Amino acid sequence: MDTRSSPDVLVVGGGLIGLVTAWRASRLGMRVTVVCAEEPGAASGVAAGMLTPATEAVFGEESLMRFGLCSRDRYPGFVAELAEDTDVDPGYRTEGTLQVAFDPDDLATLTELGEVRDRLGVRTERLTSRECRRLEPMLAPSVRGGILAPDDHSVDPRRLAAALRSAAAARGAVFVTDRVTRVVVDGGTVRGVALGGGATVDAGQVVLAAGVWTSRIAGLPAGVVPPLRPVKGQLLRLRTPAGAEPVVARTVRGLVRGSPVYLVPRADGEIVLGATQEEMGFDTRLTVGGVWEILRDARELVPGVTELEIAETCVGLRPGPPDNEPLLGPTRVRGLHLAVGHFRHGVLFTPATGDAMAEALATGRLPGYADHLAADRIPSATSPSEGVERP
Amino acid sequence: MDTRSSPDVLVVGGGLIGLVTAWRASRLGMRVTVVCAEEPGAASGVAAGMLTPATEAVFGEESLMRFGLCSRDRYPGFVAELAEDTDVDPGYRTEGTLQVAFDPDDLATLTELGEVRDRLGVRTERLTSRECRRLEPMLAPSVRGGILAPDDHSVDPRRLAAALRSAAAARGAVFVTDRVTRVVVDGGTVRGVALGGGATVDAGQVVLAAGVWTSRIAGLPAGVVPPLRPVKGQLLRLRTPAGAEPVVARTVRGLVRGSPVYLVPRADGEIVLGATQEEMGFDTRLTVGGVWEILRDARELVPGVTELEIAETCVGLRPGPPDNEPLLGPTRVRGLHLAVGHFRHGVLFTPATGDAMAEALATGRLPGYADHLAADRIPSATSPSEGVERP
Repeated sequence: MDTRSSPDVLVVGGGLIGLVTAWRASRLGMRVTVVCAEEPGAASGVAAGMLTPATEAVFGEESLMRFGLCSRDRYPGFVAELAEDTDVDPGYRTEGTLQVAFDPDDLATLTELGEVRDRLGVRTERLTSRECRRLEPMLAPSVRGGILAPDDHSVDPRRLAAALRSAAAARGAVFVTDRVTRVVVDGGTVRGVALGGGATVDAGQVVLAAGVWTSRIAGLPAGVVPPLRPVKGQLLRLRTPAGAEPVVARTVRGLVRGSPVYLVPRADGEIVLGATQEEMGFDTRLTVGGVWEILRDARELVPGVTELEIAETCVGLRPGPPDNEPLLGPTRVRGLHLAVGHFRHGVLFTPATGDAMAEALATGRLPGYADHLAADRIPSATSPSEGVERP
Repeated sequence: MDTRSSPDVLVVGGGLIGLVTAWRASRLGMRVTVVCAEEPGAASGVAAGMLTPATEAVFGEESLMRFGLCSRDRYPGFVAELAEDTDVDPGYRTEGTLQVAFDPDDLATLTELGEVRDRLGVRTERLTSRECRRLEPMLAPSVRGGILAPDDHSVDPRRLAAALRSAAAARGAVFVTDRVTRVVVDGGTVRGVALGGGATVDAGQVVLAAGVWTSRIAGLPAGVVPPLRPVKGQLLRLRTPAGAEPVVARTVRGLVRGSPVYLVPRADGEIVLGATQEEMGFDTRLTVGGVWEILRDARELVPGVTELEIAETCVGLRPGPPDNEPLLGPTRVRGLHLAVGHFRHGVLFTPATGDAMAEALATGRLPGYADHLAADRIPSATSPSEGVERP
């Protein structure tokens, strides 16, 4: 593969956000190269794949929820378009999501959240304990009640990544496995990137989509990439024995004595159990405390998980931006775009981000629905150190 | 390597029991070949390595405890002799073992066990809660009291296996990696074994030491190998962060609301947490219930484990014989010996088993201290189907 050819767009990062940007840009006829390193803890390979803006909606995060709903509602069309370009099935499931409360305090919290969602106009239904257990018979009898979000679905992020890569390749995108050490900027305009192996790749435009590692890329004026903090998540992948019924039929999110836990089922019987949320820096250690907490809460909610096999343990680093909202589109370096900071919502935000990035690459401007996520909105992007390149 | 040469002794099984037999026999001048397959779940690579007959002594298992004490007391000399033949350090540690009770009921159980041990003449000391925490400051304040067994030590079974293999090789033992499918018997006398690859190896004497897989070897008259049941154990290996103090300074065994748990420290900061005991057949699945139980009890006993990394999860199958005691030495097939059924005590029993097997191979008779473990003691060994070879 000739890494020295000069693509229209060079995407840094091979996670879902980088891949969807590459695919959508390729579909518009741009020549795209994706450069990706394999980072232990890269979030896309760890994520559970919940597409649940309704059951995540909380007070004070309305704009994030709107983007989430907008992206969730693109999923059916997005999956259909993917199928035009690849045979890889992304494991999209449309059984909805059930959110349940374990004790009376959890129910009070859930009722309050339900009222916020009603005010925001999000479609959910309150269910009694009995109704919850009619939907999910293996729930603990002690579950006090819940909320059904019939439009909150799930996808398998690993399969989705494989599908996006295959679809992008089918549209002509080129993949290079290497680490990008530096962005090459000349006179306020991006020229390309330098790779770990020493080579440089020239490109018309560059998209930084390397998750939390994006802020480690050198060569940029201060403030162009805002600080991104790694938010660690530990989760477990369980295996259902051959022939047995899965313990849940749809995504089940629970609040267990104030602690959130979820179970996301896949077609092959895998159940993803998650997840912790810890701010520990670039730490990808699986810990006693993390695993114990997940198992404790999952067992309380669905006692039948006790008998299941732990097939895999995972640790991922979510890219947390300063205001917890993604940063998309053009920066003040001409030709340089960001697609970072998707934090806990990368899988959900994938379709809307792909469309927004493709439009920004084609026109230089984000579409209206993504305007509030503009990469240059963070004040520090115009800090006094502007123009000073990092070594 | 010529697998068709004819050794004096052919050992089937490369776990601790097979290796110690090979080493001790080699030291007596016998030409030894060891044939071993790599079985997932082989107990030697999973075991924690507690050498704790005093803190395991329970009512009704006096003969087992006697053999355990006899083997434990051989360890210092055994380790010294190993050092003559290899540079591999088996990780023998001599800090003793502390057994503690979590709640008043656990303390009552421990007190009762202490009285049994006193009657058996085993040296242990009762400690108050405060004395326990003086020895192990990271124990939970709720620990009610305990027993110190100053002569119950530990070894690293993986290092011990490497040391034994190296020592045996230094004494001329030959290793073949293959599965033994059949023992070749002719006129009531063993002639050798058939390998999975199709070859046969002739040998003067054959020792079956393949753990729970021993009963799957064909070619023997019924009843020569008693039924061995796999007793599953799940355990976790934790890692202490660089520079931090290990959470325990010696082996700590606890009874937590009736449930036994242990922590075994290693020189490199590893802490082995175990273990479940489950009779599930040849099942090596790591389960939610098994891991949760170990973490729950370990956290209650030593809350500081919460912060530690889970470096490895392990599942092993202990070979459980009909009466829970090992089967050693000659069988009624001339030249065929057993060294199987060490159940939960394989690491502890390694030195005494090695000595007993070497003597049996040299003289045809077990030494007195192992007499009660004679392989032909099980009544079914003289069942009516005697002489009928299995296909």
